[in-house]
Amino acid sequence: MSQQSSRRSEKQKIDWHLPSTSSTASAHHMGTELLILTYGTLVAQLCEDCKRDEDINKELDKIGHNIGTRLVEDFLARSNITQCRNFHETAEVIAKVAFKMYLGVTPRVTFWNQAGDDCSLFLEKNPLMGYVEIPDKHSYLLYSNMICGILRGALKMLGNSPEQL
Amino acid sequence: MSQQSSRRSEKQKIDWHLPSTSSTASAHHMGTELLILTYGTLVAQLCEDCKRDEDINKELDKIGHNIGTRLVEDFLARSNITQCRNFHETAEVIAKVAFKMYLGVTPRVTFWNQAGDDCSLFLEKNPLMGYVEIPDKHSYLLYSNMICGILRGALKMLGNSPEQL
Repeated sequence: MSQQSSRRSEKQKIDWHLPSTSSTASAHHMGTELLILTYGTLVAQLCEDCKRDEDINKELDKIGHNIGTRLVEDFLARSNITQCRNFHETAEVIAKVAFKMYLGVTPRVTFWNQAGDDCSLFLEKNPLMGYVEIPDKHSYLLYSNMICGILRGALKMLGNSPEQL
Repeated sequence: MSQQSSRRSEKQKIDWHLPSTSSTASAHHMGTELLILTYGTLVAQLCEDCKRDEDINKELDKIGHNIGTRLVEDFLARSNITQCRNFHETAEVIAKVAFKMYLGVTPRVTFWNQAGDDCSLFLEKNPLMGYVEIPDKHSYLLYSNMICGILRGALKMLGNSPEQL
């Protein structure tokens, strides 16, 4: 670096820093936008490669499954969660810790069946759907199907065998 | 929900919450792992679609450009950054605010030329390279080329015309 430019940068030095968190934005998820846009590109790429929505959905599930088998290690390392005592606890941990950690939202765990082995995770607002307009011709596209695949992959790694995700 | 399962979940209720931040992990970027894995899948998809690394690099740049033109709005909204007075300030903001915000790292701004219109951003550790093993046959692949495209797209939206990114 020349002396001249060194002097100039010294004079103009401003202490740039990350903005403080607003009440509406979670500090945890300022980076989520890049994920949303990258995921959108991935889905668009699959839409170019596959003709039928069913094939895209399968591909998204497969991709998610691969990601889930890796992401689960990161999750266990960061969350300090050990063993869940039953499927109720597992569902709660997925909703309140995992979703919050990776997508910044907490789905509602709902529609439990009597046996307690079947439930739904209901997202009031799906962050992956930001910026997305799905063309009419993709009416069977399950845009966020990667999430289901991730859960399937992660649970499988933990010795669970989820049947319908 | 049945009364029985309602009673059960009441009894077992545990206040699951996000883990507190460790000294090594940034609270801002607990979700970055999902981005890294999604990006890796996107690059793998392009490797299947394109034969030559040069074409993959171009595609990644194009994808990044599209993302950058959208991400810049999010950046301006969250960062409260207004006008940069010169290219030095622009580079500092990109490194210290934008990279930190979206990837959780701060590159070194270095190799300024005499005219002050050319510099390099040097990443000690590239978070996108987590989990990645690039096969020998992709020796010309610029794995993180999407980042260059993002900067190009974002700067273009702000009226800059970066020549080499």
